[in-house]
Amino acid sequence: MAPGASPPFLQACLRRPVPFTPIWLMRQAGRYMPEYRAVRARLGFLELCKSPEAAAEVTLQPVERLGVDAAILFADILLVLEPLGVGLEFTRGDGPRIGRPVRSSQAARALPQIDVDDALGFVYETVARARKALADRVPLIGFAGAPFTLASYLIEGGPSREFLLTKAFMRREPEAWAIMMTRLADVTADYLNGQIGAGVQAVQLFDSWVGALSPADYRAYVLPHSRRVIRALRPGVPVIHFGVGTGGLLALMREAGGDVIGLDWRVELGPTWARLGQDVAVQGNLDPAVLLADVGAIRLAAREILDGAAGRPGHVFNLGHGVHKETPVEHVRALVDIVHEMSAR
Amino acid sequence: MAPGASPPFLQACLRRPVPFTPIWLMRQAGRYMPEYRAVRARLGFLELCKSPEAAAEVTLQPVERLGVDAAILFADILLVLEPLGVGLEFTRGDGPRIGRPVRSSQAARALPQIDVDDALGFVYETVARARKALADRVPLIGFAGAPFTLASYLIEGGPSREFLLTKAFMRREPEAWAIMMTRLADVTADYLNGQIGAGVQAVQLFDSWVGALSPADYRAYVLPHSRRVIRALRPGVPVIHFGVGTGGLLALMREAGGDVIGLDWRVELGPTWARLGQDVAVQGNLDPAVLLADVGAIRLAAREILDGAAGRPGHVFNLGHGVHKETPVEHVRALVDIVHEMSAR
Repeated sequence: MAPGASPPFLQACLRRPVPFTPIWLMRQAGRYMPEYRAVRARLGFLELCKSPEAAAEVTLQPVERLGVDAAILFADILLVLEPLGVGLEFTRGDGPRIGRPVRSSQAARALPQIDVDDALGFVYETVARARKALADRVPLIGFAGAPFTLASYLIEGGPSREFLLTKAFMRREPEAWAIMMTRLADVTADYLNGQIGAGVQAVQLFDSWVGALSPADYRAYVLPHSRRVIRALRPGVPVIHFGVGTGGLLALMREAGGDVIGLDWRVELGPTWARLGQDVAVQGNLDPAVLLADVGAIRLAAREILDGAAGRPGHVFNLGHGVHKETPVEHVRALVDIVHEMSAR
Repeated sequence: MAPGASPPFLQACLRRPVPFTPIWLMRQAGRYMPEYRAVRARLGFLELCKSPEAAAEVTLQPVERLGVDAAILFADILLVLEPLGVGLEFTRGDGPRIGRPVRSSQAARALPQIDVDDALGFVYETVARARKALADRVPLIGFAGAPFTLASYLIEGGPSREFLLTKAFMRREPEAWAIMMTRLADVTADYLNGQIGAGVQAVQLFDSWVGALSPADYRAYVLPHSRRVIRALRPGVPVIHFGVGTGGLLALMREAGGDVIGLDWRVELGPTWARLGQDVAVQGNLDPAVLLADVGAIRLAAREILDGAAGRPGHVFNLGHGVHKETPVEHVRALVDIVHEMSAR
């Protein structure tokens, strides 16, 4: 795009009119893409995250291959846990593991102060490189995990379905919980501000697993800490606030903050946006499973979402969660084209 | 209770005033209970389901131990799949497995007509025995899996997180999907009617995993079939319609049918009931994880739910999903007492 013109993605985040609905996809750089797999054949996941040159290359792949309207930094929400000294590992197949999970009030209180800028400088270097390589073609999004989602990994020791240990901890040790959440909020804010300093033009706060909570628990145990992160961010950079299965929490997530609220596919975009109020932007919300069907199905589902948004300023098209690794690349490309064509004004 | 008096649980299902809010708990007979574990030390899971004497005994255990206001038949939603000849097994630890999953249009169309009354006569015998043993102390609830949830096991071959095969199947093979769902709906209706004939006084339709779908997909691929089940049921027996993570689907589930809509803890009971309309009863919606905390937390959370219901006729107290196996029995007992005390009118 022409230098100086404001990119549609950033305009949409700020609820300004755009020539077409911008689209990017969570996990748009990932295993479904041959060029990503080629890089991963050389580098392990953590190694890739820590190689700014390769991570920047992977960040740009979907921009070149798919024509999406934003790039998102290639990194992982759990990188920030590594300097906390809890023994983070990415195992093949089983996903992330925390070697020394936080299971006591003492352990929660003992999480060290860390200098994220020092510990995660490699991420900022990826940001700088990716931003330079993008040369203003599309904006670059940074991201971090929200305190609840980070805490859930710290406590469970890995992915979880029920989050029983996390829920028990927050109820039994409310003070230690609050201390840990405040620590995580501050680390997260520093980390996102560092990314902004390095050049990202928007940030997404991933509270991926917060949908496991009841609204009352979200309000008591999570909202103040997510709000703390968002309030501490440098102004002028749009914030997207996202979680999965959050239909019952969206109004509270909005209360916690964010210029854009991310929706998953389990809610209808139109009525949900109306309930949230039109003074906030929304992002979403195609079921990533639709991309495994055929182009006809993709077209139909995209139509429904765009109809729900009714051309109102403030809609960023996305999936309701990340691209599945089984997804054909040509279906993802087709989705990007379909959204651009259908929404052209 | 006195013979002839109408039990609070059934009254609440019909939105009639009750002296206190009735409560029962999904998976109230289960591994968290020593007397259940004692029975399981003798009998495998499937063996227990097929032993009417033991299954009836297990059905009554929570009534005796907890003082709940309804018993629920001890059985499994997948039993109905066994006579379909797909190779159902319950493995230790991994849960149910379907040896010959349905992966093609042909396989879906080839599901045999079965005589459920013949194949599942042992369930009806459990019903008759449990009903007799209850001697009208509390009503007996029957249940079955809803067509979507059954189809998802048939296609995935076991439990799933993403339901990618199921979603791909319904989109790629809509005709075979409809044929299979119709077959499952008819089998389910026959099975529930058989349970009613044998003596259950209410039924719950478990569409446990339907929360994985978008509202548009629910409407297109599920609603007509769940409605078919509910419309085919013998009149006069309240129907509870339940799924997990269904915040965005509740209005559509209501449209499909049911006297009582089951809510999980991810939605707030008060506003959700108001949106559904007060001409339907609701059941729920405590997060089962709360039972792992302490009695103070349980009291607080129960209070919140009862306040949400505001004493309106038509609330059955329950969890938002099944009791976790790690739950202390005395916490479950405490919950039952707390709900009875707090709601006494």
